This record gives sequence, structure tokens and C-alpha cells, in this order.
Amino acid sequence: MKFAVVLSGCGVYDGSEIHEAVMTLLAIDKNGCSYEIFAPNIMQHHVVNHLTGEVTGEKRNVLVESARIARGKIKALVEYRQEEFDGLIFPGGFGAAKNLSSYAFDGTEMKTDKVVESAVRQTHAAGKPIGALCIAPVVIASILGNIEVTIGNDPSTAAAIKKLGAIHRNSDSTGVVIDEKNRIVTTPCYMTATRISEIAEGADRLVKALIKLAGK
Amino acid sequence: MKFAVVLSGCGVYDGSEIHEAVMTLLAIDKNGCSYEIFAPNIMQHHVVNHLTGEVTGEKRNVLVESARIARGKIKALVEYRQEEFDGLIFPGGFGAAKNLSSYAFDGTEMKTDKVVESAVRQTHAAGKPIGALCIAPVVIASILGNIEVTIGNDPSTAAAIKKLGAIHRNSDSTGVVIDEKNRIVTTPCYMTATRISEIAEGADRLVKALIKLAGK
Repeated sequence: MKFAVVLSGCGVYDGSEIHEAVMTLLAIDKNGCSYEIFAPNIMQHHVVNHLTGEVTGEKRNVLVESARIARGKIKALVEYRQEEFDGLIFPGGFGAAKNLSSYAFDGTEMKTDKVVESAVRQTHAAGKPIGALCIAPVVIASILGNIEVTIGNDPSTAAAIKKLGAIHRNSDSTGVVIDEKNRIVTTPCYMTATRISEIAEGADRLVKALIKLAGK
Repeated sequence: MKFAVVLSGCGVYDGSEIHEAVMTLLAIDKNGCSYEIFAPNIMQHHVVNHLTGEVTGEKRNVLVESARIARGKIKALVEYRQEEFDGLIFPGGFGAAKNLSSYAFDGTEMKTDKVVESAVRQTHAAGKPIGALCIAPVVIASILGNIEVTIGNDPSTAAAIKKLGAIHRNSDSTGVVIDEKNRIVTTPCYMTATRISEIAEGADRLVKALIKLAGK
């Protein structure tokens, strides 16, 4: 089976959470599947100095920075075709809430990138499974509405998910919530986790659940 | 046991190879040890666009970019004290050959960052083990001279290691070469590997070997 992984930059505060992205790739490979990596070819909302937490004046591109995690092997998300894949996965990090969507700034009045929306809609319509880690389930909920997801146990994010028309289930760091009907798998990762081995475990469970759903 | 991990930026072509850095952290955590992350507070030699491979005109700082992999929990390498750790680990990536040293440009006439050199020398003098992945063994060889290491099987890099006064042993992607006398452990990772699961395996073997050496 082959998965498409969608990144949103390179670094937890303004892009993809790096550990979650890398553990997703590892889980896919370890479970005998292959992957291609995609990212939208758009500018980052902003650049955050990860040492100080401050916003810098720099301009960086989401696709170009995501290429760091992908070791250069990455395509613009506009090239994604669901026909070529068995499932779609979104690692977390603020990039999901700042670049793929505007959730970090606009809450449930968020806008979502049109290319991201198209990728999710075509995959879902084809009956193929979609996975999302950490805060990324909010993006999927904003697009698909009535689905069941987890972002861990944060009350305000859970309330936002409800307001977006979806159902939130609490989960511990390495748990997965599986919406069998909609073929959505989500896991909290660093929304609740404190150790990198929890990320490896959550990503592995998510990929295993996606493989099971894709095989049905 | 507690390890110090030294990064050299964030991205294979101008900094730390991200998969190797993340798999090192995972291996440490999975094996029941803890880590702190360090990087020299210096400017990167240059910035490479990882989508095109081209050098850009940007200026980025090694410590600030390494903080992306560390999720902000990182210290300047000048603060490293071997007394507080059981071992020191250098993931690979061109950052080892462009920022920690000038091997990528000067070959065996390379210069090595003084703070990196001090960290390696104080750790080695205290009889504590040092691990290096991918191209990073070249940096350790340039500092310590007569040690046994592997960078896989690349003839020109192996010849450079010999010229630096060290001994090179060929190894496959997930193998480790253990210099018991000098307490140095090295593994090739992306010098030869093609799959991310090989990086996880090599890093895990390296950490297990370091734990064994540190316990002696």
C-alpha cells in the first residue's frame, strides 16, 4: 500500500512538527508500505525562531521548508491524485493551524487552503482512509464536518471540533480514534504526549489502523 | 543514563539530517535513557533550498535552526559539560561537514569548530563514549586521530578518514563499528541507507552500544 503524507513546513511552531512527520514516515516504512510526500506551494503564515519563540521578519515557503523533512523528495500538493494512493496522512504542528488552515488565528471561523481541501475531499469521496495527528484533525473536521476525531483531551480544542460539526472523543497520548464509517483515524501525539517514543507509538497505531481500513 | 546530542542545523543539505537526528532521540528514549540537545551558536555556512538543491542568499543560525528539531529545548554547545552526561552523540547530515567542520569544502585540510572540538576532547578524556552517524565520524576522526570508525563503504571518504590518521572499517547501512578502546561507536545511516527504517535500526544499535560502553 502507498500513502501520501502532507507536510506544512518544518518545525512545530510554524510548520510540521518534525518528530510527528518523521515517525509517520517510519511507521509507513516499518509496516511494509511506501509513501510520497506533498506540501502546498504557498508562503508560510510567518516564521518563528524556535529558540526564542519570537516571530521573525523572514519569508519562507511551505513546500521548500517541508522538503527538508522529505530530503528533497517532495511534490506540490496540487499534483496529488487520490487514484495513485491508498490513503492520506496529515502530521501535526502549528503548520496545520497556520499554513494549511487559519485555525490558530481565526478559531472555528477558519479558512482552509483550497488545495488541502481538494485533496481531503477527493480522498474521502473515493472511500479511502485519512489519518491526522495532533492538531491536524481540526483541519479534517473543518472540511468534512460530521466525523469522529480526537485531539487528546484539551477542552477548548474539543469544543471547537464540536462547533465545526464533528464529534470529539478523548484519548490518551498514544491512543487512536477510528471513525470506521468515514474512514478517519486520529491520534493526539504532542497535544498530550511528552516523550518522543509516544509519538512513535501513536503514529504506528495510526498507520496500522489506516492499513486495516484501506484493506476493507 | 543521559546523553548529549549535538545538532548542526535542520536539513540534510545544510544542517543535521532530520531523520538521523530524530531517530537518535527516539533510540535514546526507547532504551530508557534521557537526552539534552545542543548546537553551536554560529551561522550556517550557507542555506540550501532542499527542493531545488540551490544555495540561497539567506542567513540562518545553527542553534536557532537546530531548535526546530529540538522543539525549542536546546542549549548552546558552549554550555556542554561532560560531567553531566554519560555520552555524546553526533547525528549526520552535511551540517557536520559544513558547519561543525569544513570537510565538505576543504577535505582533510578541514577546520573544526573549536567548541565542537572541546566537547569531543573533554568527553573522550573522561573515558565517556562518543557516537557519530553518517558523515559525522569524519569530524570525530579529525579531532581524535587514531580511532576506528565507519562511514559505510564510500572509498573517497574512507581514504580521507585514513589520511586523518584513523582506521576505516566497511559496514552495511544498519551496522555499527565499535572502537572499544577509544569508546567510539559509528554507523553509516544515509551514507548507504535508502529507507528510513534502516536509520531507526542503525541509531538504535548505536545507542545500545553506547549504553554498554558507558556502563563498563
